[in-house]
Amino acid sequence: MKVVPQLADSGLRIVDLSADFRLRDSGQYPSWYGYDHPRPDLLEKFVYSIPEINREEVKGATLVSSPGCMAITAILALAPLLKEKALGVDRDHVVVDAKVGSSGAGGKPSLSTHFSERFSVVRPYKPAGHRHSAEIEQVLNTLSGEKVRVSMSAHAVNMVRGILVTSHLFTSAPVKPLDIWKAYRSMYEGSYFVRLVRDKQGPFRLPDPKLVVGSNFCDVGFETEERTGRLVALSATDNLIKGAAGNAIQSMNLMLGFDEKAGIGMAPLHPV
Amino acid sequence: MKVVPQLADSGLRIVDLSADFRLRDSGQYPSWYGYDHPRPDLLEKFVYSIPEINREEVKGATLVSSPGCMAITAILALAPLLKEKALGVDRDHVVVDAKVGSSGAGGKPSLSTHFSERFSVVRPYKPAGHRHSAEIEQVLNTLSGEKVRVSMSAHAVNMVRGILVTSHLFTSAPVKPLDIWKAYRSMYEGSYFVRLVRDKQGPFRLPDPKLVVGSNFCDVGFETEERTGRLVALSATDNLIKGAAGNAIQSMNLMLGFDEKAGIGMAPLHPV
Amino acid sequence: MKVVPQLADSGLRIVDLSADFRLRDSGQYPSWYGYDHPRPDLLEKFVYSIPEINREEVKGATLVSSPGCMAITAILALAPLLKEKALGVDRDHVVVDAKVGSSGAGGKPSLSTHFSERFSVVRPYKPAGHRHSAEIEQVLNTLSGEKVRVSMSAHAVNMVRGILVTSHLFTSAPVKPLDIWKAYRSMYEGSYFVRLVRDKQGPFRLPDPKLVVGSNFCDVGFETEERTGRLVALSATDNLIKGAAGNAIQSMNLMLGFDEKAGIGMAPLHPV
Amino acid sequence: MKVVPQLADSGLRIVDLSADFRLRDSGQYPSWYGYDHPRPDLLEKFVYSIPEINREEVKGATLVSSPGCMAITAILALAPLLKEKALGVDRDHVVVDAKVGSSGAGGKPSLSTHFSERFSVVRPYKPAGHRHSAEIEQVLNTLSGEKVRVSMSAHAVNMVRGILVTSHLFTSAPVKPLDIWKAYRSMYEGSYFVRLVRDKQGPFRLPDPKLVVGSNFCDVGFETEERTGRLVALSATDNLIKGAAGNAIQSMNLMLGFDEKAGIGMAPLHPV
Repeated sequence: MKVVPQLADSGLRIVDLSADFRLRDSGQYPSWYGYDHPRPDLLEKFVYSIPEINREEVKGATLVSSPGCMAITAILALAPLLKEKALGVDRDHVVVDAKVGSSGAGGKPSLSTHFSERFSVVRPYKPAGHRHSAEIEQVLNTLSGEKVRVSMSAHAVNMVRGILVTSHLFTSAPVKPLDIWKAYRSMYEGSYFVRLVRDKQGPFRLPDPKLVVGSNFCDVGFETEERTGRLVALSATDNLIKGAAGNAIQSMNLMLGFDEKAGIGMAPLHPV
Repeated sequence: MKVVPQLADSGLRIVDLSADFRLRDSGQYPSWYGYDHPRPDLLEKFVYSIPEINREEVKGATLVSSPGCMAITAILALAPLLKEKALGVDRDHVVVDAKVGSSGAGGKPSLSTHFSERFSVVRPYKPAGHRHSAEIEQVLNTLSGEKVRVSMSAHAVNMVRGILVTSHLFTSAPVKPLDIWKAYRSMYEGSYFVRLVRDKQGPFRLPDPKLVVGSNFCDVGFETEERTGRLVALSATDNLIKGAAGNAIQSMNLMLGFDEKAGIGMAPLHPV
Repeated sequence: MKVVPQLADSGLRIVDLSADFRLRDSGQYPSWYGYDHPRPDLLEKFVYSIPEINREEVKGATLVSSPGCMAITAILALAPLLKEKALGVDRDHVVVDAKVGSSGAGGKPSLSTHFSERFSVVRPYKPAGHRHSAEIEQVLNTLSGEKVRVSMSAHAVNMVRGILVTSHLFTSAPVKPLDIWKAYRSMYEGSYFVRLVRDKQGPFRLPDPKLVVGSNFCDVGFETEERTGRLVALSATDNLIKGAAGNAIQSMNLMLGFDEKAGIGMAPLHPV
Repeated sequence: MKVVPQLADSGLRIVDLSADFRLRDSGQYPSWYGYDHPRPDLLEKFVYSIPEINREEVKGATLVSSPGCMAITAILALAPLLKEKALGVDRDHVVVDAKVGSSGAGGKPSLSTHFSERFSVVRPYKPAGHRHSAEIEQVLNTLSGEKVRVSMSAHAVNMVRGILVTSHLFTSAPVKPLDIWKAYRSMYEGSYFVRLVRDKQGPFRLPDPKLVVGSNFCDVGFETEERTGRLVALSATDNLIKGAAGNAIQSMNLMLGFDEKAGIGMAPLHPV
């Protein structure tokens, strides 16, 4: 907030990784971030960028806000399901349960990141009221044209890199897997970095952060449960790449007319 | 199923750790377990035992079915909330998101438990249709007097022992934390092995399996989210103790008139 | 150094866990610890306590210095081999290669203990010049009646609790395993906390810290290599128990005439 | 052994990753591998390839034997020190203490690689008599012109990829660090994949497998200990790349006149 407004006023192209320009509605800053936004005029000028969601908008942008791992990973699993009204997804009960590696907490040592304390935890560090719920809802509201309520919980797990998001949705009537695939394909056709995972069985039939670590990929998969009318969507990214710097570089590539994959197009290092 | 029926007929006291006598309704076995139950007459004679839920019933029992980690850990967090009608918990949207250590998969080597494959995973191994949903619903139906739908997903995480269950519930109106504490206390008053966790802040303010590994404790905590009407309940056990052998020994102690804590009463080895 | 001298002068019984009174020769403090010892008179009054080595001396002591995990674990593997002259162990080439969990570094957060940095390391943090070489040599010199040179290297590995010490020794002539067992048994007969491990094959045939974590046990085992005249001794402890507080309590028990196992006699929590 | 001899006779270029053609002296096969070598004539035709040691020889070779992680990582640290006679390294007391990730044991599930058993171990799985001692001695004998005795011990540690080798050497007189650097530089000048690590302090001042995982690099560093006349050499590789497939591809590149780095020249994915 101290530097970006001046740079923005000067006309420079900016990809901002902070949360300062993510929400369009300045009225949301006091409740989510605890301050009045000093430059509400800039909020509508920043494009919230996840290229797989709004590639064309990013291409023409000068000011871009690139979100974090929780939002990107959740949105990539949820967006097609909430945009496609025929699936009948219940907007009021969207549960997002995230499992995140330690690097999501940054590089500053503290008691909660001290190895002897953090090793082998499954620590529910933010079960309710997570700030990034706001931006996820913002994107889903826009895509679906309706008010969506996102109920997010974040857990720290025993690894350094990677995030898995388990999204629990409910549908008004049973949905066919084929229709869900169609919704995903329709939105991600031509998007190199989103991979739809659909092995029939075995340990690798669903997204797992381990398989994307070191890459800009987001793996997406799902299962349905007819008995309860539930649709479970699963998405995995490397929180430091597609969930942070990779998405920013991808956004920059688009803004500058470069190949979208430039500098981030290689395969992950740890394929199975 | 091969041995227990004969032993049961002979009048011996039995604590069965298999799933063979967990469901009261024999009609559920074909859909959940894929077979017709050969001895439906025994189902009503077995007591499904979680002492903190039905201690008196267990005390008088000859035949007991002791459940597994997923069911015990979920039920201990959910039971008071669904029994107490004044909390207004929505019976149709009960999401149970479990994170389990490798020992939950047993001792038999396989590709999915091979160290080089399993290390650092967050693997959604059963996102929908988990068998133990049936017994959790059975207990909650009885306690609440209503039909409850449990939507459970199970994930394998990077540790050996322990399970964390995150339960996402929705209430018809905002609930006060004090009323939730009351519901828990009312049910677990005098139950040594259930600990209500309520630190105000810091890394240990919510249940974490790491803090119960090696013990028969189940730690329970929660947070509420007014904006979405959500109540997040968290519960953690050592899946091999309170989630398996410990609960069985505790049940046996009650059946035989021993001290409930005999043989399992010590504090966990790895407190923080 | 600020408190203990006064307490010692007052006649209180003391078990000191610091390194301040471990070396008998005050002349060694400048080179190993960088300071002149302010109270050399106290050095000869403190008994360096590893009960399995000098139980009788500890029983009569008022002032005791209880060593750390590196020294205790190395000494318990080495002492019988260097005391028993018939084994012909070369005093000049005693290599001690230690692998230690993170808790050995204490509870203070830092860059090197930050989870994202420390996870999955095999970090050689002190390959040469380790301070505790001095006290190991002191014990071995006394037991063997000769000058022993200990060459120690310490590595941080990917776990919280536990230490494995691999000691590489050379013998002037081939030694029989039976004679090595005899040397160990002769010294540790009646010592509950030292367990000699000797399975013929399988993954548990040699000491592993995982199998002693949570207990005051030290597991000791060995293999011989005729071709090179080498004797490899292996020893494992929980660095926080037998390698620290447990050894101190055991020492206190002896000083006060209590049962040596009081408070620390239980089996480890994670047996295989 | 079943396929390669025929292929070799046909004149094809071969890079063999097995141990079948590593030792020049067929007389060593019975004792180390338990069989009489069926084609001793081929042994002298195979070049044992570590390009940093014998690049020119590999360039002209038709038949190449590419060694494994233990041998490559140990040899790269030891070769310059034993070749350079002025350092005065004692040939009879060369201790090689290796710490290896689980992938070194291959992909086949077993009790010892079962996650619940292997997690958090420091397991000394081959403290004496390791087969690869023979090939390490073969290389060092050739380079030094003297008989070298290698005393190797292998330990499994809590990670998937990577190996750290700690080599303990003794010198007849104190050696200057500068002379050790010279020995290393003299041999590895122009060798892209060997990196000499020499930060003055901090957690990254010595080789750690974590920093080379995903790459073909071998990091080498050392410390000296004047008191005991010891020289501790440390070397780290990714056992699956420089310790296996990467070294083989590098060898193939040389045999075919390709750029030595082709296909394996990228930087590691997880730098600090």
